[in-house]
Amino acid sequence: MKKITVIGGGTGTFVVLSGLKDRPLDLSVVVSMMDSGGSTGKLRDQLGVLPPGDLRQCLVALSDAPLLWRKLFLYRFESGDLKGHNFGNLFLAALEKVSDSYNQAIETASYVLKTKGKVIPVTLDKLHLVAEYENGKTVTGEGMIDENHLESSRIKKAYLTPAGTANPKAIEAIKSSDFIIVGPGDLYTSIIPVLLVKDIARAISDSKAKIIYIMNLMTKSGQTTNYSASQHLVDLKKYLAKEPDFILLNNAKVSFDILNSYKKYNEEVVVNDLNTKGYKVIEADLIDNQPIKSESSDVLYRSILRHDSKKVAEVLEKIFNA
Amino acid sequence: MKKITVIGGGTGTFVVLSGLKDRPLDLSVVVSMMDSGGSTGKLRDQLGVLPPGDLRQCLVALSDAPLLWRKLFLYRFESGDLKGHNFGNLFLAALEKVSDSYNQAIETASYVLKTKGKVIPVTLDKLHLVAEYENGKTVTGEGMIDENHLESSRIKKAYLTPAGTANPKAIEAIKSSDFIIVGPGDLYTSIIPVLLVKDIARAISDSKAKIIYIMNLMTKSGQTTNYSASQHLVDLKKYLAKEPDFILLNNAKVSFDILNSYKKYNEEVVVNDLNTKGYKVIEADLIDNQPIKSESSDVLYRSILRHDSKKVAEVLEKIFNA
Repeated sequence: MKKITVIGGGTGTFVVLSGLKDRPLDLSVVVSMMDSGGSTGKLRDQLGVLPPGDLRQCLVALSDAPLLWRKLFLYRFESGDLKGHNFGNLFLAALEKVSDSYNQAIETASYVLKTKGKVIPVTLDKLHLVAEYENGKTVTGEGMIDENHLESSRIKKAYLTPAGTANPKAIEAIKSSDFIIVGPGDLYTSIIPVLLVKDIARAISDSKAKIIYIMNLMTKSGQTTNYSASQHLVDLKKYLAKEPDFILLNNAKVSFDILNSYKKYNEEVVVNDLNTKGYKVIEADLIDNQPIKSESSDVLYRSILRHDSKKVAEVLEKIFNA
Repeated sequence: MKKITVIGGGTGTFVVLSGLKDRPLDLSVVVSMMDSGGSTGKLRDQLGVLPPGDLRQCLVALSDAPLLWRKLFLYRFESGDLKGHNFGNLFLAALEKVSDSYNQAIETASYVLKTKGKVIPVTLDKLHLVAEYENGKTVTGEGMIDENHLESSRIKKAYLTPAGTANPKAIEAIKSSDFIIVGPGDLYTSIIPVLLVKDIARAISDSKAKIIYIMNLMTKSGQTTNYSASQHLVDLKKYLAKEPDFILLNNAKVSFDILNSYKKYNEEVVVNDLNTKGYKVIEADLIDNQPIKSESSDVLYRSILRHDSKKVAEVLEKIFNA
């Protein structure tokens, strides 16, 4: 069975994992642990726990449990003391408090969600992401960087504070992989935070795995404003330390209405200006044309336009079997 | 297998269920749904859910899941937005929100906690307890009545608002029981609220079951101040509509230190002044002499002196097999 490791943590990773879940693969996901916004950020600050949000999404994406359990884990309280908190986050936070180790907490959550594959936090240290912009500004915290929409200056450098160490299980998964899938996901707040953890980039270079980079559909204001595909790649390579073997891009047309709704945020389609030196570019229709389903809306609400999990999985499977 | 139904919901019920759990019995508990204090009260008010607190305690008491799950369900958040909320309560509240029915929510919680026996809410209606005192005062809400420590007037009458209807599963369990165990527990805030639900008292009278009343160890200020055993019985019989067949009382000495700590709250040992007309009085050493364990302290912290689950279960088993 092919060993596949997905790297990320946000909505894009949810889509990739959902697509690959039911295929005969030995699947792992190495999850960003830098989230500091929303319910996750409050739980970090108030309870001193590791950030549960990205882990929860990955656990649910790989869950084979009845729909009720997945709905429960994605349920967001709507009022009172708990307003805005996601039940899955509270579950992981409380589990961390009563468990002997974080691994035990994840095993317990994986057991109840009947998770297929391994969900691996990239680190078990409590770290924060820092972004230095070309204009000299420094922003600390993934949540703050994510919300820094109006920043027109590019990110010059990203790093973690404190430096932290990698989870040995993450290194092991990466080193033994046949394929490593990077993205889709916010470049500076979902992908690069994983690559920044000490020894992760080296494990990727040391691995014999082929690297597949799934390009984002749209630019992200304040992070990749006006970035073309090759500009995404330039920034990624600063932290990946190895050229991807495959780059997947969408080539299906995005509807005028959707483009218009992104335009308000100064976000646009990522243009394919890649040459094919050193990597193979694969273009396909990767867009999800379904209206957002209520069950999944809590995970995906931020992205009106998103990758289609089946379409992505089909293209990936062709690469795995080539 | 003998069919046993326990009635109550608080600490005393937890102790009885813990003791009976591993014995070969067909065990059910009909749980009070009137709690309105603490974390449960906030969840009722803020989310509009049914009160989870007593149900959670019964689910944990009957749980055969690994220790970690029981610890998780009893875990109380200590800081931030969630301060004072109990994880098990949040679990039941979120589960109620995503389930098709409350029965489905309880089945799901029972499944994950590997609950032995059936945990049955006495009603699925949202009701509140009202107490009318002899001095003309009326207090609404179980939490408020529970906290009305300094009240020197006796409760003249208790009722529910709105009246509500019984859960058919509760009626069924009661009617088919061989033994119904009432108490121990706060008379007006754990026991009588169950008996007040329409058709419950009648189901008990109609049942061929023998009724076992386990007398409280101590009086409770504002509810049963200065009550002797026979005064407990007088009040209970207003709502039970049938004489108990057996009354269990502790006859072991309570230590001076413990008596002193209750004295501050004007609470004292319930004196046995029962005659034996119509029921059988059984006296035994029923006191737990163990120091409170940290695992269970969250459930039991309110009671310094409590029944011993093994001692109670042994006496009960003799009655079942007589």
